[in-house]
Amino acid sequence: MKKIVIGLSGGMDSATLLGLLLGQGAEVHCCTFYYGSKHNKWENRAAENIIDFYQFKKFPVFGHPIDISTIFTDFSSNLLLSGGEIPQGHYEEESMKKTVVPGRNMIFASIMAGLAESIGAESVALGVHSGDHHIYPDCRKDFISALYLAISKSTEGKVQVITPLIDDNKTSILERGFLMEPKVPYGLTRTCYTDHPFACGKCGSCVERLEAFENLKIKDLIIYQ
Amino acid sequence: MKKIVIGLSGGMDSATLLGLLLGQGAEVHCCTFYYGSKHNKWENRAAENIIDFYQFKKFPVFGHPIDISTIFTDFSSNLLLSGGEIPQGHYEEESMKKTVVPGRNMIFASIMAGLAESIGAESVALGVHSGDHHIYPDCRKDFISALYLAISKSTEGKVQVITPLIDDNKTSILERGFLMEPKVPYGLTRTCYTDHPFACGKCGSCVERLEAFENLKIKDLIIYQ
Repeated sequence: MKKIVIGLSGGMDSATLLGLLLGQGAEVHCCTFYYGSKHNKWENRAAENIIDFYQFKKFPVFGHPIDISTIFTDFSSNLLLSGGEIPQGHYEEESMKKTVVPGRNMIFASIMAGLAESIGAESVALGVHSGDHHIYPDCRKDFISALYLAISKSTEGKVQVITPLIDDNKTSILERGFLMEPKVPYGLTRTCYTDHPFACGKCGSCVERLEAFENLKIKDLIIYQ
Repeated sequence: MKKIVIGLSGGMDSATLLGLLLGQGAEVHCCTFYYGSKHNKWENRAAENIIDFYQFKKFPVFGHPIDISTIFTDFSSNLLLSGGEIPQGHYEEESMKKTVVPGRNMIFASIMAGLAESIGAESVALGVHSGDHHIYPDCRKDFISALYLAISKSTEGKVQVITPLIDDNKTSILERGFLMEPKVPYGLTRTCYTDHPFACGKCGSCVERLEAFENLKIKDLIIYQ
């Protein structure tokens, strides 16, 4: 059985990635990072619920919660509890750049690669997709290619990087997950960037989610404030 | 003034790197990682002493201690407290491969790059050198090149990777540090891999240190068991 390490944030993308890989028969090890973002507590709880769901459905899925919040003590980003307010409005807007956490994806991927090598997993799967590229440099294809090479060299070719959703957007991701059997449990996912148990519906992340559900005429089961 | 982030382990290589960059007039930010290795407690203490030394000498040096031990909970390596015994003998021997911590340098470098971007530093400097290449894949030039590219892409070109010691060996590093003004305080450094306040003199790391001092006929001021 293929063994794969993923980063499971608790959001729609990584939940879909998990469903996809489990559907392909892989054993999936989910790293869930606590790194001190405003919504971290809520998305980590969502990640646990998603893992519980797939374990209940008898899939081979394992959780690896990892607290790395000390890393980000001296980092600056409005996404972090230590930073300013989460901007409202659309994802494409300049203001959303304030939610970039410098180097976050590379830090996450490096840790996942080390875990993969340690437990004999052949791949690290990242949930990056086309909608992230504009705002986040560490979601772009040229970064992913360089990351692939660095991880391959670091592990002497033992661990590769895969990005099955890289050409998808939020709507096509939702569509893929909705057509799986079982459906990805989107009602358990957490998208909102704010520090509140329920979604604000106004931040770039919420706006993008709402558009995807609207595009597909699917009912979003999470609670909005 | 150039601002540079380095990883300061408390060993000879990173202490020399620090002395070199300070001598070039840089402001240096030192990440010291607690990651759960057997000698970590002792080398972190050494790193603090080295920072104190250069601060006492009025150099612009800042410490960033970062506890990332939770990352390595499920990792396997004899270097970690959770792993088997540290092998004795020469560094070149096959047995020393048991001291590899999968992905360690990439994890460290990713964190340093994120910090560098956050604080406006232009470079991340790594203390890798030619003697490490045989055992550790994440000290080899082809890995460093890939890492350089990944960090450059991740930071949109804002942060570069420099490796001023990459063509040096332990002896030439010691020689460089000994010729600086002030001399690198090697008496404050920690090299031994074992979990003991004083050096064993028998592990690969100690053997290599002792050879370097012997080659240059310099007295090593640390205490051996």
